[in-house]
Amino acid sequence: MSTIFKIYRGFFKPLNISFLGPEGTFTHQAALRKFGNKCNFISAKTVEDIFKEVEKERVDYGVVPIENSMEGVVTYTIDMFLESNLKITSEILLEIHHYLLSKESSIKKIKKIYSHPQALAQCRKWLLSNLENVELIETESTTSAVKKAKKMKNTGAIGSEISSTIYKLPILVEKIEDFTENITRFLVIGNDSPKMTGKDKTSIIFSIKDKVGALYDSLYPFKEKGINLTRLESRPSKKRAWDYVFFVDFIGHKDEDKVQSALEELEKNCVFLKVLGSYPLENKEK
Amino acid sequence: MSTIFKIYRGFFKPLNISFLGPEGTFTHQAALRKFGNKCNFISAKTVEDIFKEVEKERVDYGVVPIENSMEGVVTYTIDMFLESNLKITSEILLEIHHYLLSKESSIKKIKKIYSHPQALAQCRKWLLSNLENVELIETESTTSAVKKAKKMKNTGAIGSEISSTIYKLPILVEKIEDFTENITRFLVIGNDSPKMTGKDKTSIIFSIKDKVGALYDSLYPFKEKGINLTRLESRPSKKRAWDYVFFVDFIGHKDEDKVQSALEELEKNCVFLKVLGSYPLENKEK
Repeated sequence: MSTIFKIYRGFFKPLNISFLGPEGTFTHQAALRKFGNKCNFISAKTVEDIFKEVEKERVDYGVVPIENSMEGVVTYTIDMFLESNLKITSEILLEIHHYLLSKESSIKKIKKIYSHPQALAQCRKWLLSNLENVELIETESTTSAVKKAKKMKNTGAIGSEISSTIYKLPILVEKIEDFTENITRFLVIGNDSPKMTGKDKTSIIFSIKDKVGALYDSLYPFKEKGINLTRLESRPSKKRAWDYVFFVDFIGHKDEDKVQSALEELEKNCVFLKVLGSYPLENKEK
Repeated sequence: MSTIFKIYRGFFKPLNISFLGPEGTFTHQAALRKFGNKCNFISAKTVEDIFKEVEKERVDYGVVPIENSMEGVVTYTIDMFLESNLKITSEILLEIHHYLLSKESSIKKIKKIYSHPQALAQCRKWLLSNLENVELIETESTTSAVKKAKKMKNTGAIGSEISSTIYKLPILVEKIEDFTENITRFLVIGNDSPKMTGKDKTSIIFSIKDKVGALYDSLYPFKEKGINLTRLESRPSKKRAWDYVFFVDFIGHKDEDKVQSALEELEKNCVFLKVLGSYPLENKEK
């Protein structure tokens, strides 16, 4: 998906990309990195809205957060795949860095800081060592924090690098997050299926029969074919209490022989199985 | 743990139980069902506070939510077990029912309804069919909704049965939730280890080596001994990006021979393994 245009009645037309907004979020940043700035980016309010826009082909692709290396899976995204027939067409790995943005030219002038609770939590040690007596105020998004800090004196906001550019609020201190290796993984969803590149990942969902050793049996075909599972996540099926589905990622493409035969084997032990897509592996991941 | 007293310097002393507050939450309801009303119940603000209170032995037990049959695992609770050495001493399964509480005697008089977003979402269909044009207002907890509705005319709150009793606001309509089988599982945490009853469950955490088939190999001892896994959940280790730990529940007690030998086998394939506790199986679960 290196192209940023699609051919439409013989003309090139820029792609329309729906992302989890508002503008300046990490999802926006991930979408920009993947598609460049010549596409049309359309901010959506919820992950559900993004799925709908792509399903109805009002946009070409959607970009949604799926997992963070510290916080784990984004449950409201993963649950969307239960109902949807959209495909995963690529993944994006973005290192999460937090920036202190302010109109002030020195951190000595900062008396209060606005941000989303998660961003404040991820910078807690830095804030304690550098701005111990500053008032911390929670906002519903880092974007609304940036908008507030733009209007006020002696005020900072913790936000993304891109939000500094979009809302024209200068960066006062870079990368104030406490942990390194804070990476969020995003998925691009669409209606097409990328071809094999030789370095691919496949995502599937399945549910297993209720018997001793069922999960073990379902993993056997992968072990036997030497296919490496990179992720296993269980979620409630939402159909019956304590009934689960498993989301599994593994290295390989659905068109490879060994993957096909592993999936055929797996299907025998499953109540249901759905391939969410095969897509090029991003390298930053382990 | 049928006793509600402990012997202290020769006297019986009621148990102190810390629960996730405020008063009237489902966790409070679960704690009351487990321990009866002769214990001292102490409301805590966060799950972290409950773990601290039990670790420092300022209370005897803590009650925390761990999993809901529709929403999945409570990540902030499960992550606490990574650091803590507390034991799981029992589980509590509570069916979640929502009640419409109000000073009014008829739903025709209700013009607005307060509740937590999750409770509003779980009653959406009922609200649409019965109170279509009513204003819905989100609150930070069902308890604060109940307190608001107690002060206002033409107002309802969606809350628990127990909050009706505690805050003396009458029940106008019972069980207005859209889904049946909405069950939350709570854990009791403490410093002791219950003895085998013959119908027990054990919870463990482990992390596996980074190699093809590692998860499969780690499940083999359970399959071989005929031990039924009831739950498998993966969570970020919070040490390295994309490094996971697995939380597994299975049927059996850690003092049983077959469980001991399965755990010994498992340990050979693990980077680390911790037994969180063996405790009597509650029957409502599948």
